[in-house]
Amino acid sequence: MAKESPEPVTAVIETAGEWLPSALGEVEECLDRATGRTGPLAGDASATLRAGGKRMRPMLVLLSAGPEGGDRAVRSATAVELVHMASLVHDDVLDRAPLRRGRPTVYAESGRARATDLGDALFAEAFGLLARAGDDAAVAVLSETTRDLVTGELVQRSQAGDMGLAEDDYLERCRLKTGSLFSASCALGALAPSPEGGPDLESLAAFGGAIGLAFQMLDDVLDISGPEERTGKAPGTDLLDGTVTLPVIVAIEREPAIGTVDLDRLDRESALELAGRIEATGALDEVRGRAIALVEEAKRALDGTPLPEDRRTLLDLVADGVVLRYS
Amino acid sequence: MAKESPEPVTAVIETAGEWLPSALGEVEECLDRATGRTGPLAGDASATLRAGGKRMRPMLVLLSAGPEGGDRAVRSATAVELVHMASLVHDDVLDRAPLRRGRPTVYAESGRARATDLGDALFAEAFGLLARAGDDAAVAVLSETTRDLVTGELVQRSQAGDMGLAEDDYLERCRLKTGSLFSASCALGALAPSPEGGPDLESLAAFGGAIGLAFQMLDDVLDISGPEERTGKAPGTDLLDGTVTLPVIVAIEREPAIGTVDLDRLDRESALELAGRIEATGALDEVRGRAIALVEEAKRALDGTPLPEDRRTLLDLVADGVVLRYS
Repeated sequence: MAKESPEPVTAVIETAGEWLPSALGEVEECLDRATGRTGPLAGDASATLRAGGKRMRPMLVLLSAGPEGGDRAVRSATAVELVHMASLVHDDVLDRAPLRRGRPTVYAESGRARATDLGDALFAEAFGLLARAGDDAAVAVLSETTRDLVTGELVQRSQAGDMGLAEDDYLERCRLKTGSLFSASCALGALAPSPEGGPDLESLAAFGGAIGLAFQMLDDVLDISGPEERTGKAPGTDLLDGTVTLPVIVAIEREPAIGTVDLDRLDRESALELAGRIEATGALDEVRGRAIALVEEAKRALDGTPLPEDRRTLLDLVADGVVLRYS
Repeated sequence: MAKESPEPVTAVIETAGEWLPSALGEVEECLDRATGRTGPLAGDASATLRAGGKRMRPMLVLLSAGPEGGDRAVRSATAVELVHMASLVHDDVLDRAPLRRGRPTVYAESGRARATDLGDALFAEAFGLLARAGDDAAVAVLSETTRDLVTGELVQRSQAGDMGLAEDDYLERCRLKTGSLFSASCALGALAPSPEGGPDLESLAAFGGAIGLAFQMLDDVLDISGPEERTGKAPGTDLLDGTVTLPVIVAIEREPAIGTVDLDRLDRESALELAGRIEATGALDEVRGRAIALVEEAKRALDGTPLPEDRRTLLDLVADGVVLRYS
């Protein structure tokens, strides 16, 4: 199976020494084994699961761990990606999503029952992988962040259709559903070479949380403006799902009439039209600008840490990659 | 909230010393905290989740651990019940089940999104509870059995409507979906006082697996014959879901014409009629008899173990309780 390597990832890999591509390769093997272990659950879904992921979170684990992270970092990187996969599989069931990363979802290919059970099995695999290695510090971090993740998804659904959504509520939801797992990825990386948690742990966790939040904000911009061949899904999908994002909130501040639209009554055509109105307010540029500022803030969170120069550079590259992917 | 205590459980508690009711009380507190920790996820669902469970699995953990099991046993007992709850919540979503234990399901009360997310959060809580205590041996056992459980559910759905289902395939599915968690409950109990696994571990795991299988077989009998006020759901529900169970398989052996029924085309009335035809073959008595034999076999698995007499008696009582509940 050909693996896609989007540009920012390639840049990071090319800049790093031998250890990073080698560790990423081990993560892929470990993911193959873990999804294979789900046996009859995965079936044809196995390829769908593994294809096209950007492996941002595993990359953050490995870079936060550094070359001394060893097997522990590889396991944590795999576990984080398994939790990410599990949550995507369940989300796609709930959203009845036909496409993900430009391919049919597990839900579309195998139905809601198989997809729900497979998601459950992937959660179990993630925890089992760390537990079999006796890494209970990592299991504890993964459990907390999994709870955040699913809480974030639930909060998002409970906010659906609310055109009066406050920015703080949006930001808190993004911290839960995206920032937390990015932050945990960095924390798990920091725990790999020094299970008591090295001096970088807090800074790395803050770094991860900030770029996760930026990632989500830019993802939300892309949903409004992104061409389908880039995002792998139709633009305006969030609007059709009733998901109110920062671009919408900012657009309403600038043009209050947008706030009177009833998202429940949108169809594909009127969703595209609404996306155009949002873009016309300049909201997308504002959100992009805020995300870029957040990435810069994230990088500054690493100032003063004793991270070696080369790893610092790689982490900065990942942070820039979050922005580049959307520019 | 009033707690129900079905008779077999009451009998075991009354026979045991102080430690058992006290430990069961701690499990309830621990469940309250864990479901409370799911925060906005649980909401009104929290009471629904906790109500009316028989706590068979926690009981097996505690009895397998004995009075020396301490906090470790309480945590494992709680974690096992959380995984059980999570799987029920997801099952009810997939089956669109209105009732469970005679009460509206989380799915019915809160919808499929909240129920799916809540199930995910309960899985994460179960693993987190054990991990925060550093009990990675227990996390590993729980991870394996969770995978079995969801695999069993999936196998069941893939077998739906197959009136030619072989008995061995039915039994394997029951081992996965029910026997495994019963067996793991006993194994987790055995690990609590002696984390390396005491001399009873294998025997207790075999005991648990056998009574779990008997439990499932009797549950399947009850679905055909059980009065609704006893089972908390309408009789023939499995048949309407297309689930082929041992009573159906045995009935077809005795009266092949039953095998020609198309389960997809059943309605509530014709499902009740089919249940009557199955019962008339004497299949229910045969399955009951086999389940009782299995329970006796389970008890014999404990022969020769160094378990103290009083705990052996209590475990036998639980085993008998599986049968009594259905007699």
